Amino acid sequence: MNGIVVLLSGGLDSYTAAAVLQRQGFELSALTVHYGQRHAREIESARRIAQALGAARHLEVAAGLGAIGGSALTGVEAVPKDRPVDPAEIPATYVPARNTVLLSLALGWAETLGITDLAIGANAVDYSGYPDCRPEYLEAFERMASVATRAGVQGARYRVHAPLLTMSKAQIVAAGLALGLDYGLTHSCYDPLPSGLPCRRCDSCVLRAKGFAEAGVSDPLLSTV
Amino acid sequence: MNGIVVLLSGGLDSYTAAAVLQRQGFELSALTVHYGQRHAREIESARRIAQALGAARHLEVAAGLGAIGGSALTGVEAVPKDRPVDPAEIPATYVPARNTVLLSLALGWAETLGITDLAIGANAVDYSGYPDCRPEYLEAFERMASVATRAGVQGARYRVHAPLLTMSKAQIVAAGLALGLDYGLTHSCYDPLPSGLPCRRCDSCVLRAKGFAEAGVSDPLLSTV
Repeated sequence: MNGIVVLLSGGLDSYTAAAVLQRQGFELSALTVHYGQRHAREIESARRIAQALGAARHLEVAAGLGAIGGSALTGVEAVPKDRPVDPAEIPATYVPARNTVLLSLALGWAETLGITDLAIGANAVDYSGYPDCRPEYLEAFERMASVATRAGVQGARYRVHAPLLTMSKAQIVAAGLALGLDYGLTHSCYDPLPSGLPCRRCDSCVLRAKGFAEAGVSDPLLSTV
Repeated sequence: MNGIVVLLSGGLDSYTAAAVLQRQGFELSALTVHYGQRHAREIESARRIAQALGAARHLEVAAGLGAIGGSALTGVEAVPKDRPVDPAEIPATYVPARNTVLLSLALGWAETLGITDLAIGANAVDYSGYPDCRPEYLEAFERMASVATRAGVQGARYRVHAPLLTMSKAQIVAAGLALGLDYGLTHSCYDPLPSGLPCRRCDSCVLRAKGFAEAGVSDPLLSTV
């Protein structure tokens, strides 16, 4: 069985991506990065999801993206709310080089484990404004990874799987439900209420609600609250 | 004045690289990453060096490479000692994807600062066995960086400067001394003695001693002890 290092944030997308790749036959090594996100609650979700998926292993590591600044997700700038989401815009919640830092840590762990497949729940439809969610970025990372590592020097070629890249949020939700996923385990909100409940007003809540609505199902996270 | 984000480890190479680039006219933004290295003492050296150089700013961030394992530098495996250093070998002190993680953090900070120049003290002569110290790696990282970021999407092209890449340790020492650097501020040992003094037996101590000897000067770090 081939192993794959999957970035698992605790959100809906990475959960679905991991499940899709597991169904394809990969053994999951789940990696969750504490990068200073405001929504640390999603890390608890990541733990529950890794367990629900039966991941072979789950590693949590820290990376100080918060100190680097430049994003509403990690800094003091307000998370935008109550606005139409423009998929072509680069939003305030863009974290500079976030996916590069996450994939680099995944690459290091993969090399330690002797694995050459990496996975990320990146999506170029709802987040087309994030530069590091585009196919050309993922391909450039693969090329870099294959010359960055001892395994690469010895002939290994790294591959970054992004099974959700061209799917709409509704398609992602439908695919996950078809795989029997429990989206009640996930957390998507960028700026949860003090109670921990989703704000329902940030871009991530708005996109999630739209996805469930278009898929014609109710969100278990909301029906349980 | 153009800004540059320089990875500053506290060692001799990154100090020299930063000074060379400063002399070329760059304003220094120094980045030190706590990545779980055994030789945390080098972080104190990085602080002293950033101050000595008059860096415009110095940021310290954490990245949990230690948790990822796979290296004698961060893990429980012993640091090799008392052996001939084979520059073509990939040594036990190779940290999987280390430079990629370090450069990714530098990239994120650079984007926040509006800077497109990055620098690393990588050297392909004494460390030719480290895959992520080779020109083809640095070029692949540049290409990836330019598609990874908001600035890149808007036309910026990132450059990774590695001014020491083709220099021998003796040439590095000579260049730094010509710039008036105080190598007594630096720390190179992979596995310092409990007293904090260099072990003089690990690859890094051996290479440093060889560099000073070939440059025909004494190492101020040793003459002060």
